[in-house]
Amino acid sequence: MASEHTAKAFDSDLQELTRLVAEMGGLVERMITESVDALIRRDVALGKRVVAADIEIDNLQRNIEERAVLTIARRQPMAIDLREIVSAMRVATDLERIGDLAKNMGKRVAALESDFQPLKLIRGLEHMTDLVLSQVKSVLDAYAAHDLPAAMNVWKGDEEVDAICTSLFRELLTYMMEDPRNISFCIHLMFCAKNIERIGDHATNIAETVFYMIEGQQITDKRPKGDMTTFATTVPGN
Amino acid sequence: MASEHTAKAFDSDLQELTRLVAEMGGLVERMITESVDALIRRDVALGKRVVAADIEIDNLQRNIEERAVLTIARRQPMAIDLREIVSAMRVATDLERIGDLAKNMGKRVAALESDFQPLKLIRGLEHMTDLVLSQVKSVLDAYAAHDLPAAMNVWKGDEEVDAICTSLFRELLTYMMEDPRNISFCIHLMFCAKNIERIGDHATNIAETVFYMIEGQQITDKRPKGDMTTFATTVPGN
Repeated sequence: MASEHTAKAFDSDLQELTRLVAEMGGLVERMITESVDALIRRDVALGKRVVAADIEIDNLQRNIEERAVLTIARRQPMAIDLREIVSAMRVATDLERIGDLAKNMGKRVAALESDFQPLKLIRGLEHMTDLVLSQVKSVLDAYAAHDLPAAMNVWKGDEEVDAICTSLFRELLTYMMEDPRNISFCIHLMFCAKNIERIGDHATNIAETVFYMIEGQQITDKRPKGDMTTFATTVPGN
Repeated sequence: MASEHTAKAFDSDLQELTRLVAEMGGLVERMITESVDALIRRDVALGKRVVAADIEIDNLQRNIEERAVLTIARRQPMAIDLREIVSAMRVATDLERIGDLAKNMGKRVAALESDFQPLKLIRGLEHMTDLVLSQVKSVLDAYAAHDLPAAMNVWKGDEEVDAICTSLFRELLTYMMEDPRNISFCIHLMFCAKNIERIGDHATNIAETVFYMIEGQQITDKRPKGDMTTFATTVPGN
């Protein structure tokens, strides 16, 4: 960059971007927790608050994108500096998608009219959410601290989430087959379980962004990943 | 921009970006068609080809992002020029998500082991796909031609898609309640119908990007939209 003045201006721009991403991350973590709480406690009002919070997430993402683009145009950063800015944009995109997924769960709370709520299912959903939430927290910490090993731990670590999701799907299928009155309820929970799994996928996307930011290239390894979408071949009824 | 030379270099960068977005759009349109064809014809090999094609989409998105960022850093475009570049990045992000959704449908083909395939369901799925595909085509044309009225037509026009999706969900629920052996199959089709609906949402996102590109501000109106996720309150069994 041209001068010491530009370098300082860039640092201040970057700090503000990082601060906004951290703010967005905090809000998104809360949306995840609250959407699953709302589901489990059938708290329609809390579900609606999650839906309403998504607007703030969308605004933060646009704000981060605009600032990032202006910083690139004004300061013409190169190499690591440029990657820092691009990474802030990418992380904001993943956080915005996580917000959408939490919002979708929040919306579903109002539709869960049945009283059916087996304890094993709740425990599974809670366990899965805890795991995914800790992945999101860890990867955002790794991003803030430029900690590549920590990011790679998240990147490798979502097999357990996929396994729980598959087992939840099987259990939901069993309940549906036992009693057709459970079907609507179980479908909503399937979409929610899938949303939580996808939130985990976004955590691994953010881990890939940390890799790119630090190493200067896209990660090329194939991530170890249990493929849940073919669950139906392994459950009864096929 | 500084000089005529820079202006020409910018135009050439922008043309290349627009060309890449058009290429990506063409590939994504084909992925949508082929994934639904594969589902309907139970063509596992075609499903796998759709899954494989997604890598190309991901690469194109990264390529567009990198070129866009370099163009902003090198040419320091302002106003409409800057918005053109940001819009190319945004459209590429939506196209990448559409590719993911088509890939997910392609994956599911292999899991559909049942022979159950009611004609009414197939027709509904085909009709919904035709509508969404024509939205994707129209909005990409509107983007390429800077045609705001055409983009706004797409933006307003996804209520029909939502209505078909809701009616498909109801029908799938009926089949599930009639015979538990249909459940796994119907769940896969529900996820697919939801994916197609989400592809329609991305088409409206692209319409919003066209608005931003041309008007220089985010669209603020609320889009008219039937909310499908609460379907369960209106179907039997609740």
